[in-house]
Amino acid sequence: MFFSHVVDQTLKKIKSQTANLLTLTNMSLGGFAILAATQGQLNLSVVLIFVAALADRFDGMAARKLNIESELGKQLDSMSDVISFGVAPALLLYQGILHSFGFPGLFFTVFYMSCGAFRLARFNVTESNGYFTGLPITAAGCLATLAYLFNPLIPSHLYLFIMIALSFLMIASFKFKKM
Amino acid sequence: MFFSHVVDQTLKKIKSQTANLLTLTNMSLGGFAILAATQGQLNLSVVLIFVAALADRFDGMAARKLNIESELGKQLDSMSDVISFGVAPALLLYQGILHSFGFPGLFFTVFYMSCGAFRLARFNVTESNGYFTGLPITAAGCLATLAYLFNPLIPSHLYLFIMIALSFLMIASFKFKKM
Repeated sequence: MFFSHVVDQTLKKIKSQTANLLTLTNMSLGGFAILAATQGQLNLSVVLIFVAALADRFDGMAARKLNIESELGKQLDSMSDVISFGVAPALLLYQGILHSFGFPGLFFTVFYMSCGAFRLARFNVTESNGYFTGLPITAAGCLATLAYLFNPLIPSHLYLFIMIALSFLMIASFKFKKM
Repeated sequence: MFFSHVVDQTLKKIKSQTANLLTLTNMSLGGFAILAATQGQLNLSVVLIFVAALADRFDGMAARKLNIESELGKQLDSMSDVISFGVAPALLLYQGILHSFGFPGLFFTVFYMSCGAFRLARFNVTESNGYFTGLPITAAGCLATLAYLFNPLIPSHLYLFIMIALSFLMIASFKFKKM
């Protein structure tokens, strides 16, 4: 009796924490992606950002499926997004390409991070109504990382334009339906 | 008449955005601190983190004094804190000292970032009652940065311990009165 109660409680706890554990995984992947970019291991950083995007996709799905969506989970998710899709891709592009532009490269890297953070802050205080306002930071981060992969094909100065465009798209007020 | 109305509206707008502008300044300083650490300019990174801490102190004060505290402001503040006092000091210590420890250095740098993000997420869903729960990330970030300054005096392996201690202090559940 006691044993089945303990098992039951443990299973409940695991279930309620599954989404948050996935979010923490996503966050850690973002942290490792930042350190990889710092150490010049840019391809590893790319892989880590994409895996973080997969984890991000799964934690939302898990939370909805297990019916364990929580306010703490939402906040944790935003924190993890600013690390994995705000700071990490910005640092990847700065280390890989933008550092060669001097101050403009520096400025627009920080501008991208700030716009991403603003986008998330606004998202957190907006009631969910089935619509996104502005480009989600996950999409912006993945697009920036994807753009980095086409590095040999895209002229360097275009990356400045890509960073500026993604930054403005995140803070823009256009709406589109969530998928 | 029209002119005075426009001036009045503009002043109101400036007033309502003062705190958020200070928060964005804090966030940008954190972003620049990250890029400085990445480029090996560690002393510049230290200065930027401390100036961000000053900006962080002022934006809260400005919001309270001007009576313009808002939910968006609170969220923006947390986003800025995770960048300036979560990622930036962690990267500073990793670049300056912890990278020489291999995987443990890597792991506890990411652990510090994740604990800081968790601390902020928990703070955002907790009603303010005049008490802090766990060490605030601003204090942890400043202590880590201060510890870096004593680099020649403190044995390197102690920094691993400092990172672990600060991480656990942030997610701990002890309470103490806000100053």
